[in-house]
Amino acid sequence: MEFEPVFLEGGGITSVKGFRANGIASGLKELGFKDLGLILSEKPCDVAALFTNNKIKAAHIIFDLERLSNKISAIVVNSGNANCLTGEIGVKNAREMAETVEKSLGLEQGGVLVASTGVIGKFLNMDVVLYGIEKLARVIKIESDEKNFSYAIMTTDRKTKTVATECEIDGSRIRIGGAAKGAGMIKPELVDLPHATMLAFIVTDANIEKKALKEALIEATNLSFNRISVDNDTSTNDSVFLLANGMAENKLITYKSEAYELFKIALTKVCQSLAKMIVKDGEGATKVVKIEVKNSITEMDAVKIARAIADSYLVKTAIFGQSPNFGRILAAAGYSGGKFDLKRLKLYFNDLLLFSDGEIVHENVSRAANEMITNEMTITLDLNLGRKEYFVWTSDLTCDYVKINASYLS
Amino acid sequence: MEFEPVFLEGGGITSVKGFRANGIASGLKELGFKDLGLILSEKPCDVAALFTNNKIKAAHIIFDLERLSNKISAIVVNSGNANCLTGEIGVKNAREMAETVEKSLGLEQGGVLVASTGVIGKFLNMDVVLYGIEKLARVIKIESDEKNFSYAIMTTDRKTKTVATECEIDGSRIRIGGAAKGAGMIKPELVDLPHATMLAFIVTDANIEKKALKEALIEATNLSFNRISVDNDTSTNDSVFLLANGMAENKLITYKSEAYELFKIALTKVCQSLAKMIVKDGEGATKVVKIEVKNSITEMDAVKIARAIADSYLVKTAIFGQSPNFGRILAAAGYSGGKFDLKRLKLYFNDLLLFSDGEIVHENVSRAANEMITNEMTITLDLNLGRKEYFVWTSDLTCDYVKINASYLS
Repeated sequence: MEFEPVFLEGGGITSVKGFRANGIASGLKELGFKDLGLILSEKPCDVAALFTNNKIKAAHIIFDLERLSNKISAIVVNSGNANCLTGEIGVKNAREMAETVEKSLGLEQGGVLVASTGVIGKFLNMDVVLYGIEKLARVIKIESDEKNFSYAIMTTDRKTKTVATECEIDGSRIRIGGAAKGAGMIKPELVDLPHATMLAFIVTDANIEKKALKEALIEATNLSFNRISVDNDTSTNDSVFLLANGMAENKLITYKSEAYELFKIALTKVCQSLAKMIVKDGEGATKVVKIEVKNSITEMDAVKIARAIADSYLVKTAIFGQSPNFGRILAAAGYSGGKFDLKRLKLYFNDLLLFSDGEIVHENVSRAANEMITNEMTITLDLNLGRKEYFVWTSDLTCDYVKINASYLS
Repeated sequence: MEFEPVFLEGGGITSVKGFRANGIASGLKELGFKDLGLILSEKPCDVAALFTNNKIKAAHIIFDLERLSNKISAIVVNSGNANCLTGEIGVKNAREMAETVEKSLGLEQGGVLVASTGVIGKFLNMDVVLYGIEKLARVIKIESDEKNFSYAIMTTDRKTKTVATECEIDGSRIRIGGAAKGAGMIKPELVDLPHATMLAFIVTDANIEKKALKEALIEATNLSFNRISVDNDTSTNDSVFLLANGMAENKLITYKSEAYELFKIALTKVCQSLAKMIVKDGEGATKVVKIEVKNSITEMDAVKIARAIADSYLVKTAIFGQSPNFGRILAAAGYSGGKFDLKRLKLYFNDLLLFSDGEIVHENVSRAANEMITNEMTITLDLNLGRKEYFVWTSDLTCDYVKINASYLS
């Protein structure tokens, strides 16, 4: 059976039946940049959400966790302030944001979630935020504008990040759309509780059992957001939300059914697409590199090796410099704690073999730099020991990263 | 009892009785930079050595491990090539280096150790190296020159690193002197086997039992070289050597005696002094920051928290930018896996309290940037939970670090 979800060009949240989105400049950010976004569903949704594994969690997470069993109609997001390390006042402020959306749009009590991103350790200016929410509620009733929403959730992002896909499941056309933000403080470990300050908002019109919604999100996240790293700093605010409003009116998708497997494939594609956009837009990044570890004895060995390489300062600067320094790559594998045997390991840059049988493939070394010129490359370590594997997408480390973060109060 | 080892201004290896050192340009490095160093003791020495915990170990380590029970008279060091990932040929080359020193200086067979630092994954040009060793052997017989040695072991180092101390133990004057190199790929975890590409050569004229020599080195290293991080990349070549020639003719220092405790204090001071020089000279570094975690329940909690903060890209760029971004510091503590309670934690920049009782100390925040102006500062997290503690010295992350490593083939 062939199952190929189709990407909708220029698609996003608003490509999905019943979902509106918009954003405005409330004044939280200076210079009139957009900083307040809202997603609204015509019908109340089941929700699945995964949050950062950081012990310190932003106020919006503490607040949202209480509401995940409710039916959700909207998510309000502010950028410019992470509402983190703000104690009980922070949680109260998140609650007020949600309640103001409920009142302004006449929604059921308990039906709104909140997300925040930006500087840690500052109280939100609630006068500005609440006034902004009232205004945004008026705007979204009249007009839906995906771009405005995408801009409103940005911090150090250079580009907006949206995607949508359509597929056929059980004879019904189902859409999944999403928007994300994130460029720095990116090493998601989103647990059930998953992690990054990445925020991702995914919506679908699928009619799907709540348990299936959550399990699909966990599986898709483990193959996407949890496999990216810009700077190895796991944020306090990372959140992935998935709303399902059932408006596709398909036969209910139940956990572990064939339809579930298809839904999961489509959702994974959406999540991977957004995750990769985050790495591409990593602070100061010029390249995306897939670090692939194959044929390990355990998956954990592959995870340790792939992550050590993906997070190495020296590997990331070498990638920036297009310097084929495979010694640094193997050194990172060497301190990763993952099990390998240097005599059995094969190292590739794309398809070019550089190390094999315990020896450098000297005739290929001079061609290694050529493989690094493009914006994307794959570094593969075939451990040749077992049958497990893991991959991570990482970005390069550049002067621009340093400049952005030497001054950004995130 | 007061015991205060005295630092000898401008001291180093050659401040210690019976030790000579020198270095030359053999041609391994381009442009006539010095690249071959030699330490020579008048009398054969007991040796203790600790090497990198990286699974991939340079050829010199594999070679040296066979000789640590021998009496050692000399250590030969080359820079410009790490002789790592060079397989059996690399080990054979290390052996040839040692044997050439033995022959050229008429030393006992087995009495020479080897160290290498530089680019990984290239074979040494043995014609150049062996010719250089013969020349250096002739030079060192005539002349001892600490500076030449210090220059010869440098790679990306900007400064030479030497220190010497004198103390009185059991009525005898004992000296300990040392030289080190290292600026990048620095996160030593030197085990018995300890890690960085740092190399440190420490010599003493103390008459000390071999077991005491090794135990003192392990304890001193755990309080010094193992507590520094420039870039969180543990090298394949890290090595710390300690030679004792007994020429101070003091009463034998035995393990766990009072004299041992004094020797250990003096040795720790030498190691800490060299370790801190490495961080100060970290690639592109402008600042040294001590990350201190106090009053944790277990030492491992303090280790995890201190290391996560010391290795955070975002904390290190904030330090460079003198940006008092304590949110990033607490976020790193949050993902470290170390146990703490935000409500009990106190965060200080030097003596300035910034976070206490779960809240930001708002009146002090505006003064935080002032604490970051100097070249050295201390960030303290008092967890207020237990009685354990740990500290790490780290450097800032700068554009220069990126530039150096985008092009350096290390």
